[in-house]
Amino acid sequence: MEILKEAQAKKVQNIYRRNIERVLGALLVTSDFWKVVDYSDLPVPYTSTIIKVLEEKGYVKIENDEILLTEKGLELVKEYNIAPYKDFSCEACQGRGVPFYKNIDFYRTFVEIAKDRPEPVQQFDQGAVTPETTVSRVLHMDMRGDIEGKEIIVMGAEDDLTGLAIALYGGYKRLLIIDIDERLIEFDNKIIKELGLKNVEARVHDLRNPYTEEFLGKFDVFVTDPPETFAAFKAFIARGIATIKEHGGAGYFGLTLRDSSIFRWQKFQKELLRIGAVITDIIQDFNDYMNWGYHEETKAAQIAPVNKAPEDIWYRSAWYRIELLPGFERTNEPISDEVFYLDEEGSTT
Amino acid sequence: MEILKEAQAKKVQNIYRRNIERVLGALLVTSDFWKVVDYSDLPVPYTSTIIKVLEEKGYVKIENDEILLTEKGLELVKEYNIAPYKDFSCEACQGRGVPFYKNIDFYRTFVEIAKDRPEPVQQFDQGAVTPETTVSRVLHMDMRGDIEGKEIIVMGAEDDLTGLAIALYGGYKRLLIIDIDERLIEFDNKIIKELGLKNVEARVHDLRNPYTEEFLGKFDVFVTDPPETFAAFKAFIARGIATIKEHGGAGYFGLTLRDSSIFRWQKFQKELLRIGAVITDIIQDFNDYMNWGYHEETKAAQIAPVNKAPEDIWYRSAWYRIELLPGFERTNEPISDEVFYLDEEGSTT
Repeated sequence: MEILKEAQAKKVQNIYRRNIERVLGALLVTSDFWKVVDYSDLPVPYTSTIIKVLEEKGYVKIENDEILLTEKGLELVKEYNIAPYKDFSCEACQGRGVPFYKNIDFYRTFVEIAKDRPEPVQQFDQGAVTPETTVSRVLHMDMRGDIEGKEIIVMGAEDDLTGLAIALYGGYKRLLIIDIDERLIEFDNKIIKELGLKNVEARVHDLRNPYTEEFLGKFDVFVTDPPETFAAFKAFIARGIATIKEHGGAGYFGLTLRDSSIFRWQKFQKELLRIGAVITDIIQDFNDYMNWGYHEETKAAQIAPVNKAPEDIWYRSAWYRIELLPGFERTNEPISDEVFYLDEEGSTT
Repeated sequence: MEILKEAQAKKVQNIYRRNIERVLGALLVTSDFWKVVDYSDLPVPYTSTIIKVLEEKGYVKIENDEILLTEKGLELVKEYNIAPYKDFSCEACQGRGVPFYKNIDFYRTFVEIAKDRPEPVQQFDQGAVTPETTVSRVLHMDMRGDIEGKEIIVMGAEDDLTGLAIALYGGYKRLLIIDIDERLIEFDNKIIKELGLKNVEARVHDLRNPYTEEFLGKFDVFVTDPPETFAAFKAFIARGIATIKEHGGAGYFGLTLRDSSIFRWQKFQKELLRIGAVITDIIQDFNDYMNWGYHEETKAAQIAPVNKAPEDIWYRSAWYRIELLPGFERTNEPISDEVFYLDEEGSTT
């Protein structure tokens, strides 16, 4: 397809015909750019470039911030028999397989406590998931035997309050929550103190610094939500794995296709296997992110072909679970500043 | 833990402490051997060996085919703070994320037609999934854009009638169903003829034979359900990938932890990535298998520590989806007979 070649000429290498089809399929059911990104499972810069090529070739037109297929575009869709985007995911569990309401008291408590949470800030690449997401994460972990009686570390993902949610849920042997953001750690500690929660500690820690002995090989389970550059992913996951006591330990993290292509996912997966992990779960669209206050400051907003901000949830990520097999690798190198947050596929930080 | 060492001394290498914990956790909520296998996500021979070690050490006793924790066993569970098995999976979609009732007419049609299906036979390692599973597979594929307008091959998995289900669902450009079992192909062809379904063909083919040119590189999507020895997995998946036209093509298949350990899963995943695939979905317990008529003839029945046959669904597998990236490898070697069906982890064939 010539559209593919044109997009590739605009420095978008990591796409293939399927991606063009999915963008066109999304445009059959929506004219909203952010929904197109969501439905086509593509990084924002790539979606944006494809839309621009489609516009140049007369397949779409942009009017009042709406992206519309032209007659020529509709003919193209017909000619190639392109399927409209369809969503058959379960309304009850929102496609996660684990509904938040399986423990409704826990959900209510969490929502009540989370309403005073600190606002996400761009400085730390923050963007919180919905309370339903956080609660489902905890239930999924518990179902897999990764909470009760376990030593758990939640690393640099406290904008989602996943650590605090586990603290409220209880049952663990020990819980350590670390994050670079003092506001979040203070918030956690306030709740922990107020409710008198036991065996849990929240502490400010910059993940770029190597771990001290007290972290290394001390936990059964880690949870994190890495930025999607390869270097940052590698660093976060390596940090997580370095905390694990022994094989059979587990890790949980989100990975999105909105800031990272499927091509990069392959690199991530190779790295996971190389380190000695095995992937047990990849649940697409498990994590729903609420729109963040700093949207207009993001590269995503700047490169979007429309000025309209997202009106609904559009940023989602898959939820990964891994287990560590015998001989897994523990590394603890310092992490350079430069590995974080921006590259050609990322745009929301 | 000494239990782990004892089990390993009995030639069960591919387990770790977590597995012992999961067996004990399962025994906190059930005394049924087959449910223990299900809940602990372990191959039957391994679960059996662990139960035997637990019995030898006085942690469990077996009475009237029920496996019961002894007082000593309960103390062990308490001492190690072992969590009981919990199931928080969604009742609506049965944890699949895609409920079968999203297209209830399709479901009803499929159930009506499938009621006359041929019985599974041991000769071909057959064991059919529930109609809800088959229907959810089709909806999941369509949601991912892998049916409408696509050329699809369903290879050697027709005991599940997945090919026939896609045929009934429609929307594809072309569908080819191949299976070694004449009875299934005849059944499919009868329905195809009766209903006048277009662009679909069902044909007897032994996957051990290399493909002719008419199969190679001709499809967008493959679906299969390989036996879980490494050699058979490699052969089935290689066959599937050899049919794919170009990168962006997709593959679907089941992989279980009931006939294969998590250690072997890592080997499978490494092989997938080596061939040039990326894993997009791993949905645990997506595939529910109905109990098969030949249970008593299986190795599983022989090595089980109880004589009781399964009363309920206990055999499940995860549903994998992969995409092929540029440079993926197409091979088409003949496959030796010996790679199929039995090894130290498998038992249900």
